[in-house]
Amino acid sequence: MIETPYLLFLGDAPDRLAAKVAQGIKDWRPELCVGQYRMDGCNADMGLTDMTLDEALAAGAKTLVIGVANRGGYISDSWRAVLKEALEKGFDIASGLHNLLRDEQDLVSVADMNERTLHDVRVPTIAYPIASGVKRAGKRCLAVGTDCSVGKMYTALCMEKVMRERNMKATFRATGQTGILVTGSGVPLDAVIADFMAGSIEWLTPDNDEDHWDLIEGQGSLYHASYSGVTLALIHGGQPDALVLCHEPTREHMRGLPDYQQPSLEELRDTALIMARVVNPDVKVVGISINTQHLSEEDAKALCAETEARMGLPTVDPFRHGAERLVDALVA
Amino acid sequence: MIETPYLLFLGDAPDRLAAKVAQGIKDWRPELCVGQYRMDGCNADMGLTDMTLDEALAAGAKTLVIGVANRGGYISDSWRAVLKEALEKGFDIASGLHNLLRDEQDLVSVADMNERTLHDVRVPTIAYPIASGVKRAGKRCLAVGTDCSVGKMYTALCMEKVMRERNMKATFRATGQTGILVTGSGVPLDAVIADFMAGSIEWLTPDNDEDHWDLIEGQGSLYHASYSGVTLALIHGGQPDALVLCHEPTREHMRGLPDYQQPSLEELRDTALIMARVVNPDVKVVGISINTQHLSEEDAKALCAETEARMGLPTVDPFRHGAERLVDALVA
Repeated sequence: MIETPYLLFLGDAPDRLAAKVAQGIKDWRPELCVGQYRMDGCNADMGLTDMTLDEALAAGAKTLVIGVANRGGYISDSWRAVLKEALEKGFDIASGLHNLLRDEQDLVSVADMNERTLHDVRVPTIAYPIASGVKRAGKRCLAVGTDCSVGKMYTALCMEKVMRERNMKATFRATGQTGILVTGSGVPLDAVIADFMAGSIEWLTPDNDEDHWDLIEGQGSLYHASYSGVTLALIHGGQPDALVLCHEPTREHMRGLPDYQQPSLEELRDTALIMARVVNPDVKVVGISINTQHLSEEDAKALCAETEARMGLPTVDPFRHGAERLVDALVA
Repeated sequence: MIETPYLLFLGDAPDRLAAKVAQGIKDWRPELCVGQYRMDGCNADMGLTDMTLDEALAAGAKTLVIGVANRGGYISDSWRAVLKEALEKGFDIASGLHNLLRDEQDLVSVADMNERTLHDVRVPTIAYPIASGVKRAGKRCLAVGTDCSVGKMYTALCMEKVMRERNMKATFRATGQTGILVTGSGVPLDAVIADFMAGSIEWLTPDNDEDHWDLIEGQGSLYHASYSGVTLALIHGGQPDALVLCHEPTREHMRGLPDYQQPSLEELRDTALIMARVVNPDVKVVGISINTQHLSEEDAKALCAETEARMGLPTVDPFRHGAERLVDALVA
């Protein structure tokens, strides 16, 4: 567990996209963010109060979260002085960067001297069990996609938000770096050893109240040749009661695989059900989430309506138009 | 690569089952075994010449292979003196045990002093790539099972043997500990990091002659809740042209999962084809391999005939009755 609240470190982010981890935390857990720290040349702005380290400490911040990524995912030299000073002043530091905090000897030394913790959320720190397949109490919803990076995390977070507004028992369960930084805990599934993948998801979504829903962050796609094994482990470890199909309609090919096309929503529905029924015969596809960020408002609404008529399932862009209808379907 | 030929170390194996790794090597690569080393109390016998370390060295052995497993998979104290002496005399040591040679400080010291190599085949030593999904030259056959441990490795090895007898170009590709010790190389897939599983199998089965067949060792099952992700990564990384369905007909439940039943061969066929067509639209199921070790000769033949009639596919126990008909189907 990463201690909250956070100071979001935006560094010298050249644009908003470079600070998308910070954006995700700000979008989904604004109550965990006391402020932002920006260096000279920073062109990103989360709309939070700009703070010095001392001001953030006074406001109660416990962890500085690196909310910015360089190309290459390394720890920039220009950040280093700030990070060391933060450790000396009493912050922990959390990072999802490809290059690890723990491999930076100078940061490790300062953290040790000041008894601070460096969280590399990209690396598992727990010895996960092998999956037992035993049925667990409580309900689970999993987002599955026609491709990678089609909006599975945002779909789960949108649904959690609506459910909490309705005073339902709901918990977003993070399985990737950004999700873990958003919530402060989770499983970095793509870095787990093969034999323990499904077991890590059982660990992440344990027995719960019968009316509690885990909203599990999806990963990869059953149809993505590079990452499909991760997706199937998530389905079998997650024992979903409900599936939401996620799709990005403007892709010209599968992400990173120029020779591969996305499956149809019908193919995804049928295959995901076959695989999910292995662990839960009663599983249902409850709705469809379309990522319409590259479509006009008119085209977005038309595509959702057309898809809904064709598939016979509530179809929305939950980030653009709200997840209410997906949650209605979950309840029904 | 592990240097060959081998001296098979049977230690103080209480029975034949405890030496099943040695049995696999002896069954499939007798030409790599110069002899066996047995200690007092050993009740296993591979039918090889019993040798001292010096005799094995004189016969050309390069690597002592630990062909015996304790309950718990640790390195027994009673073996330790022999292993150290072997390193001093010039052997490398290879092991698939759960506890690693590299974690035994005394063995590491002796190996270093004598410039010998300790091979822990359970641990990947290569930085595998992320799978690209790019089509490769050559042909590939993968065994997929209704469950774990139903005979997928033996099926692939039986087929390789028949193909080599026919002067076909064929290579068994190991994906598990025993397979790696049998062939001297391979990928310990269950220990690979999630993101790199499919990529490790692409690495294992690279471009080859158009008339060359890789016989890829299967792992797990699409229907096994603990390990299905490994299986799907193997299908998508392996890009199979041909699938052989493997089944063990006497299981009362899925291995290690008392609440789960095996799928039918029809279900396995249909699901494996859906998933394999993602990477190879022309993939075909060519035959069925039934592990009849717990059936009488009469029952075994009756079950194969009944299954063959029902499924319309050549059905054999390749270990008991030969893999000729599976290879015929591969060629056709």
